[in-house]
Amino acid sequence: MTTIKQTESGYRVDENFITDWATRVAQAAGASQAVAQSLATYLVAGDLMGFRTHGLLRLRYNVQCLEDGRSRTAGQPRVLSQRRATQLWDADMLPGPYVMPLAIDAACEMAEQCGTGTVVVRRSQHVAALAVYLEQAVERGFLVQLMAATPAQSVVAPFGAKSAWFSPNPFAIGAPALNHPVLFDVSLSMTAAGKIRTAIAEERDLPYAALITPNGDYSVDARTFTATPPSVIASLGGEALGYKGTGLNLFSEIWTLALSDYGRADADANEGDANTSWIQVIDPSAFTDLDAFKQQVQAQVDGILATTPIDPRQPVRVPGSGAMAIREQQRIAGIDYSNAVWKQLQWCAEHYNVPLG
Amino acid sequence: MTTIKQTESGYRVDENFITDWATRVAQAAGASQAVAQSLATYLVAGDLMGFRTHGLLRLRYNVQCLEDGRSRTAGQPRVLSQRRATQLWDADMLPGPYVMPLAIDAACEMAEQCGTGTVVVRRSQHVAALAVYLEQAVERGFLVQLMAATPAQSVVAPFGAKSAWFSPNPFAIGAPALNHPVLFDVSLSMTAAGKIRTAIAEERDLPYAALITPNGDYSVDARTFTATPPSVIASLGGEALGYKGTGLNLFSEIWTLALSDYGRADADANEGDANTSWIQVIDPSAFTDLDAFKQQVQAQVDGILATTPIDPRQPVRVPGSGAMAIREQQRIAGIDYSNAVWKQLQWCAEHYNVPLG
Repeated sequence: MTTIKQTESGYRVDENFITDWATRVAQAAGASQAVAQSLATYLVAGDLMGFRTHGLLRLRYNVQCLEDGRSRTAGQPRVLSQRRATQLWDADMLPGPYVMPLAIDAACEMAEQCGTGTVVVRRSQHVAALAVYLEQAVERGFLVQLMAATPAQSVVAPFGAKSAWFSPNPFAIGAPALNHPVLFDVSLSMTAAGKIRTAIAEERDLPYAALITPNGDYSVDARTFTATPPSVIASLGGEALGYKGTGLNLFSEIWTLALSDYGRADADANEGDANTSWIQVIDPSAFTDLDAFKQQVQAQVDGILATTPIDPRQPVRVPGSGAMAIREQQRIAGIDYSNAVWKQLQWCAEHYNVPLG
Repeated sequence: MTTIKQTESGYRVDENFITDWATRVAQAAGASQAVAQSLATYLVAGDLMGFRTHGLLRLRYNVQCLEDGRSRTAGQPRVLSQRRATQLWDADMLPGPYVMPLAIDAACEMAEQCGTGTVVVRRSQHVAALAVYLEQAVERGFLVQLMAATPAQSVVAPFGAKSAWFSPNPFAIGAPALNHPVLFDVSLSMTAAGKIRTAIAEERDLPYAALITPNGDYSVDARTFTATPPSVIASLGGEALGYKGTGLNLFSEIWTLALSDYGRADADANEGDANTSWIQVIDPSAFTDLDAFKQQVQAQVDGILATTPIDPRQPVRVPGSGAMAIREQQRIAGIDYSNAVWKQLQWCAEHYNVPLG
């Protein structure tokens, strides 16, 4: 394929080309080769899977952080404490996409020895999409569960409240199966902040009432999120079952912020969207034969696919399979960027003098 | 207080009295002292916390299982495999309330050594309410996360489907704080099967549309659940966000059924509501100072309580705190049993010749 191709709504580019370009931008902003490579690879991986709010749209912000010192440009996270199957790290503002693969690797090593391996990482810069890190563990035949919270951000309301306490914490799992792996990544609130910002930019309502206005009304109006005073995001479960989502968010924040001993009182606003992450890897062969395990996961996938669709034209899907289909298609045809994202990339190209093609 | 007191809608009894009575019933049905004691204690603990579908309402079924051999009356679970921080057990149909505390104890021991301890238990008889097991770990200063699935039961539909694949899998967490601990237990589907059966018995609709009829319509009509063909339970998230609940149910079933290598194809219908459970304990002192950790959990609790309620007459609650308030009140005033449940207890009293007071 041609490296860059204009489309009706933006540009279509080759994965390797754009990864290489983004790596050079990050290096021009001061990142080491290793940090730049990770940042580019995992942001592009987000775009590939269709997580467009957590892809190269974030590059401009990320490289500005590298340039002005909000992100560290090189170095290693610090191990604060450890036992045989656990470690606590302080990433001291290294980019999340650089730290997460290191943490997954450490968790895999512990899982081989102990059956499970857990790393909690505090103070990394934003980790982008959790989904992009899952396969590193899954390809080794491991189960993986990831969570992240943002201690300086409060935008999600507990059930029954119209003011916020939680961040819109993502939750992701990966599991090897006989065919495609299971890869699944969602926010534990009714929507993610990035999706609201996209709706505002595209001047449209949210597809469902995910926001609670200062009056206490559930609303689809994305613009209320940036009004003064702003609306807040509702917990998963909504008006009837929001206590379930609230409990899941509390789970997420205890397992990240409390275990890392770095909570909302510790994080200052300068840390913006720096994350605390929970990384847990499980070696299924500590429990049973790996092939038998994969067959059991495949039976889950096949069981879901065999249920009767409500709408015969919409076959039931395995959660996360949509992202994998988008990736497969974009790996062949190229990755689509909207004109709005492309403008951000052009800003980076000019600012760091790394021409786009 | 008087041991048994008649109320407007049933009976009110002392916790110790009814636990002792239920222990003697289970022994009369053949259970060893240890099995009988656990069964009685944890079923009553469910009633105490207001989980009335998972309390002594289940005693008659449980003791019948002991009597006819569907439950083992004594003995130990078998360890199928282990590593430093993980164990897989086969409970060979020992009662869940007997096996769960053993598994939590084993997980705590591993957590002390390794930072985390995980036990997956397959083929226990029904575990009743997960919430009642949390404090055993929390009182030792540990975090605990529990899940359970039911391989012989398919009543929850994946998102977009009108036929079932999953069981209504519960998810529970416990965490120590400075004041009350956090104890939280919910089903990952829109409702639990027991709540539907209660609605049918009380001839009322569900409070929200948690069921999907064979036509594919969301419904509040509980009776559709026992019709032919039956309705199925919707995944948490409902019509807009049910893919999130589907992913959480898939998480639950991979982490229980697949890890234990005992899936829906392995369980036969005779195993009824036998469970496979995931028990994970974390020692926070492997990560940070225990008191600092408890302060962080307390900050989460206080932060939730400090949000602004939508309805000023309904203060925002910490998930799970309702159950603890019910327990506190019932510990003082006695446990309330409805006439319907009391009838079940009287059947046990007569059948096993252990008079109720």
